[in-house]
Amino acid sequence: MIKVVIIGAGNVASHLFDAFYTTENVSVIQVYNRSQKKLDYFENKTNTTTSISEIIEADIYIISVSDDSINSLSKKLQFNNKLVAHTSGSVAMNQISNHNKPSVFYPLQTFTTGKDVNFKTIPLCIEATKKNDLLLLETLAKSISDNVYHINSKQRKALHIAAVFVNNFVNHLYQKGEEICTKNNVSFDILIPLIIETARKVSELSPLKSQTGPAKRNDKKVIKQHLSDLNTNTQQEIYTLLTKSIQETHGYKL
Amino acid sequence: MIKVVIIGAGNVASHLFDAFYTTENVSVIQVYNRSQKKLDYFENKTNTTTSISEIIEADIYIISVSDDSINSLSKKLQFNNKLVAHTSGSVAMNQISNHNKPSVFYPLQTFTTGKDVNFKTIPLCIEATKKNDLLLLETLAKSISDNVYHINSKQRKALHIAAVFVNNFVNHLYQKGEEICTKNNVSFDILIPLIIETARKVSELSPLKSQTGPAKRNDKKVIKQHLSDLNTNTQQEIYTLLTKSIQETHGYKL
Repeated sequence: MIKVVIIGAGNVASHLFDAFYTTENVSVIQVYNRSQKKLDYFENKTNTTTSISEIIEADIYIISVSDDSINSLSKKLQFNNKLVAHTSGSVAMNQISNHNKPSVFYPLQTFTTGKDVNFKTIPLCIEATKKNDLLLLETLAKSISDNVYHINSKQRKALHIAAVFVNNFVNHLYQKGEEICTKNNVSFDILIPLIIETARKVSELSPLKSQTGPAKRNDKKVIKQHLSDLNTNTQQEIYTLLTKSIQETHGYKL
Repeated sequence: MIKVVIIGAGNVASHLFDAFYTTENVSVIQVYNRSQKKLDYFENKTNTTTSISEIIEADIYIISVSDDSINSLSKKLQFNNKLVAHTSGSVAMNQISNHNKPSVFYPLQTFTTGKDVNFKTIPLCIEATKKNDLLLLETLAKSISDNVYHINSKQRKALHIAAVFVNNFVNHLYQKGEEICTKNNVSFDILIPLIIETARKVSELSPLKSQTGPAKRNDKKVIKQHLSDLNTNTQQEIYTLLTKSIQETHGYKL
């Protein structure tokens, strides 16, 4: 049985708790959070505390708080030489104070409060300095996910930036699509099968090979027409830049 | 039984043919194409011809050729007052010569050659001038799809531009994500569950409400770090513009 203490009670913390809760070989023996309010969710399921000095002994401590608080919180922990992991994509492992053993347990997914997720398919990126620690993290990770990767801090940083492109920026393009539909009195729902198929396709064919559309075809007439039909400067700027970038990628002279 | 002649033998034409082929109440009685080579696929399944003068009588003629050829090809048709539809997202209905009855039969999906598609979930956007013609198009559309929409030329134009954002541009952001992964020796596959979940989410929650990430949180430290970690000018330009656009949308002062 791996004993885990979760430090933090936000979105990622509660999703991790839920995943471990139904796992036989893992027990979350305590959840710590500075304020009581967010701990309500965990009452009756495990021990909780709002006091750092009351954190109990465990095999792994998972810090799941905002990026800016990881370093200072890790310094305040009143025990030594224990395995302490954070769950952030953009914070280096060595931001965990080295009076404990720094490590990383990063689930690469977008979490929505209140919505169940299936951890089995979520990639877990783990990192630790010593082999034994990495093996323990791996056992913990594999208890909830089928996709466990050893990823160093530099790689994780790159993954996090790439995730901004394929998640945050992609979602914003969906929002621009919705904006254009609404303005023209068409339901955005009509685009959903296309959105799903575009996403699904990358698991079969690289995005470089999947590229289609007026920019890829260098169809100047359609590009010009689209630019004149767009309603806002920002829409036009995005259209112009991404068209230019597609054409650079696919070797057109501009 | 609705008798259809398909004019053109490209990607969309062959996917439409396949969908109609397994439908009881529709018969594709002929496929026309200028060159014989692309007609090979249809031999033994239906009548084919390379001669416009040999096109036979049908209830609906579907022109599925490149956007630029629709108008000229429709002018060459040697029959009158028949229902003639094109399948393009960006061409107005009146580009079909009016010696026949112009209409539109536009499947809003990305088609890959050689890959089967399930037409049932593909939105079909139809348009015609007269009610009877629209009803016939609707019967034809509903024989292969559960998502049939009456969409006028202005709306279809908007949908097509929105589709460039949510399909072509989104796919290009996937490619930028892959570029960043490759450069840092990480497998792009790790991002696929995130890509799928980001797409799936829009069917439950509007993209405006789904938005997350450093730009949405106005996390200046992470944004600055990401910009300095990016390797190419184009990556930096895309990051800067989409960050600015997210912040405008969500009401931050820049």
